[in-house]
Amino acid sequence: MRLIAIGGSDAGISAALRARELDPSVEVTVVVADAYPNFSICGIPYYISGEVTHWRNLAHRTHADLEATGMKLRLDTWASSIDVGGQRLAVRNPDGSSDFLEYGELIVGTGAVPVRPPIEGLDSLDAVDGVHLLHSMGDTFALTESLDRIQPKRALIVGAGYVGLEMAEGLTMRGIEVIQVEMLPEVLHTVEVELGALVHDELVKNGVDVHTNSTVTKISKTATGLHVDGATTDGETLAWDVDLVLVVVGVRPDTELLVEAGAKTGPRGAVLVDETMSTGLPHVWAAGDCVVTHHRLLGTTYLPLGTTAHKQGRVAGENALGGSVRYSGSLGTQVVKVFDLVAARTGLRDHEAFAAGFAPISTTATPDDHKAYYPGATPISIRITGDANTGRLLGAQLIGTRGAEISKRVDTYATALFHEMTVSAMTELDLSYTPPLGSPWDAVQMATQAWVKEHQLDTERATIQKDNR
Amino acid sequence: MRLIAIGGSDAGISAALRARELDPSVEVTVVVADAYPNFSICGIPYYISGEVTHWRNLAHRTHADLEATGMKLRLDTWASSIDVGGQRLAVRNPDGSSDFLEYGELIVGTGAVPVRPPIEGLDSLDAVDGVHLLHSMGDTFALTESLDRIQPKRALIVGAGYVGLEMAEGLTMRGIEVIQVEMLPEVLHTVEVELGALVHDELVKNGVDVHTNSTVTKISKTATGLHVDGATTDGETLAWDVDLVLVVVGVRPDTELLVEAGAKTGPRGAVLVDETMSTGLPHVWAAGDCVVTHHRLLGTTYLPLGTTAHKQGRVAGENALGGSVRYSGSLGTQVVKVFDLVAARTGLRDHEAFAAGFAPISTTATPDDHKAYYPGATPISIRITGDANTGRLLGAQLIGTRGAEISKRVDTYATALFHEMTVSAMTELDLSYTPPLGSPWDAVQMATQAWVKEHQLDTERATIQKDNR
Repeated sequence: MRLIAIGGSDAGISAALRARELDPSVEVTVVVADAYPNFSICGIPYYISGEVTHWRNLAHRTHADLEATGMKLRLDTWASSIDVGGQRLAVRNPDGSSDFLEYGELIVGTGAVPVRPPIEGLDSLDAVDGVHLLHSMGDTFALTESLDRIQPKRALIVGAGYVGLEMAEGLTMRGIEVIQVEMLPEVLHTVEVELGALVHDELVKNGVDVHTNSTVTKISKTATGLHVDGATTDGETLAWDVDLVLVVVGVRPDTELLVEAGAKTGPRGAVLVDETMSTGLPHVWAAGDCVVTHHRLLGTTYLPLGTTAHKQGRVAGENALGGSVRYSGSLGTQVVKVFDLVAARTGLRDHEAFAAGFAPISTTATPDDHKAYYPGATPISIRITGDANTGRLLGAQLIGTRGAEISKRVDTYATALFHEMTVSAMTELDLSYTPPLGSPWDAVQMATQAWVKEHQLDTERATIQKDNR
Repeated sequence: MRLIAIGGSDAGISAALRARELDPSVEVTVVVADAYPNFSICGIPYYISGEVTHWRNLAHRTHADLEATGMKLRLDTWASSIDVGGQRLAVRNPDGSSDFLEYGELIVGTGAVPVRPPIEGLDSLDAVDGVHLLHSMGDTFALTESLDRIQPKRALIVGAGYVGLEMAEGLTMRGIEVIQVEMLPEVLHTVEVELGALVHDELVKNGVDVHTNSTVTKISKTATGLHVDGATTDGETLAWDVDLVLVVVGVRPDTELLVEAGAKTGPRGAVLVDETMSTGLPHVWAAGDCVVTHHRLLGTTYLPLGTTAHKQGRVAGENALGGSVRYSGSLGTQVVKVFDLVAARTGLRDHEAFAAGFAPISTTATPDDHKAYYPGATPISIRITGDANTGRLLGAQLIGTRGAEISKRVDTYATALFHEMTVSAMTELDLSYTPPLGSPWDAVQMATQAWVKEHQLDTERATIQKDNR
């Protein structure tokens, strides 16, 4: 059997690896649009910052590692169209010629493309002018080339999501003065405003000039660099002269290939797949940022994340070989490091839970990461969201210092959410404790206990007192 | 209603806090044998090391904090006997007088006492001679007094369990040369020998003179200090001249009060309680290191841990008020920091699982804590134990550097064990990822995937290939 995977990023490679692992007799070819298969897109900010010393280090696996698994790679090869009935994929080769590749099963992982916001001038300016989007390794090389050539003193970043924040840190580490412009009321809009404000403070503390409730309206070239016009949501005008502009306002699914082949789309225009990663088109599977995300609490949504792409790709790779596994769903677990802070979340926030039909109530607590008597203890802000009717845990958001084990504390909540635990039952978990690293009730449990105390103690009291009567 | 809790450590205080929280009309008195209620026994090594600057900081809550909850404390008061039928507790007051305290419900948390190994001379030497056991705040003051008075250059520690290891670090930090003698083949016998060996290396790297497979047979006073005789398990004799000896070889349950009152005992002589923390004696509950431990995988055992004492105490406090909660069981989750290493475990090791009727098989993997391209990545040794028949996760042991989030990674396994996950299903968990702190498949999952690859891949392959036929 011949399996073709399209896409050299998480979903495509994960599918190809799983297929080769399960059946070494299957011929697996991965069609990769550029020359950088299995590169860590999430690592790009750390290459720009200089922390990753060579771009080649960003590869999860080298070309040789990948080929050693028995898969074949067709690099710089563009998947042009799918002949679903004929089970053939049309590709444009690096030399411009075309080929039809026959497949038994096809897995599409075309990923996502960066969103271009409606900024006047954006379409007519590009890397040569010091105006950049950032998603691929190609974008990365264009940006580092600009940084080397322009030697910017000031840069403006449009967007303060994960990549925007990581790039604010990365450019600051290169000694560049950073202006960050975010449309929403607070940076890191994936967490509650009160928690995002802590990240905002961290940016300011590190010299980033942050403008929230603000949009960039126009970018124009000047004799010495770039002029950027903007406005606050209150209508106040803003203006900056900078040497470089980086636009990182999110991604949208890259679905053209699949849609032209007849695939249906769902939330945010992503290709609809079921939990087996089937597109509904015969012998055509899809995974990663180009498809919808099955969420354990929200149902079908769109939430592109590398972790999800790995899982979906693995499922697609197994099912393309005749397996019958199902993607068990995302919880939207995410973490980002911003200078010396780490912010993480899993599950739902209040407004998301409300929209999904839950009755969310939340409590924020600030337990220390470890016993206060041991040096270096720092508070973690933990916001717990639970359902008022059922007591079920719905989500957790955490912000604390690097070293406070935020990224693995969120995993305890994610595992609890996976098993539909109640907030109250979290107290039963046997979590680890040593004074330099935790507390007898871990911070994870102190936060859930604070939620219970605020929302359920009256009921607990009434139950006990009724029993005693 | 009048509730009396005996014991000022985790179980007693936790019970008293829960009772006051649930019913502020309940009169709660805690009878404390010394003057140090709610002190963190686990923090003692860090006070000895000098990292905790004042012993008062070791209190989880101050005396005033405790009394602010409405509980009353009777310090330096010894619980002499329980009159079960009369619901009275006989106590000896600080002034030597006796009282009978009437109770509606009694919760006993007498804890544990340090084991005195059969070492010749141990019974006739004490703090004045520089020979110490270490369990209570009283022991702590005796030890710090000896350290100040003797100014030891060399100290010998008998035992290399949690406290022994923490004390090896603590005394080393004070500039004392440490000899550590452990009867078993490797230090930290709670983890597999191959992992304990990493801790052994860390001790040696930090100048500790470690002797495994060795026992101390005799301690005698000399003109200048102490002479210690020992032997290896091969019969080779050992001898050291030191200034101080610390014996920390574990604890045994302090059950005298309850046994005299008619309570039954179970594993390791601990008092038998059911999951409600009832001793079976009317109106007498017990919790913490003096009672047996209900283990989710082992059934009734004895595994004294502060985290467990907190949970059991809470259950006892609630049930003493008429509640009907059950202690949901330990998984033996533990973590210890030894210099720059952290070692953790949860669930069962091979021999424990085998004895409990499982069919354990294990795999050790060494995934990095975060992406190798980001500075500071270090390998974590993770040993996964699963059941060969059912695929169920049975246990995990982890050793890695401080900063590798070992202590909260073990919690993901603990939460998975709580829910009886299979090793294979761990791949489905939506864990967090950012390159500085993790990987798209977290180290936790890379380790379970290594187990699956070693033990289940052939089955997975056969299933796929059969389906395809």
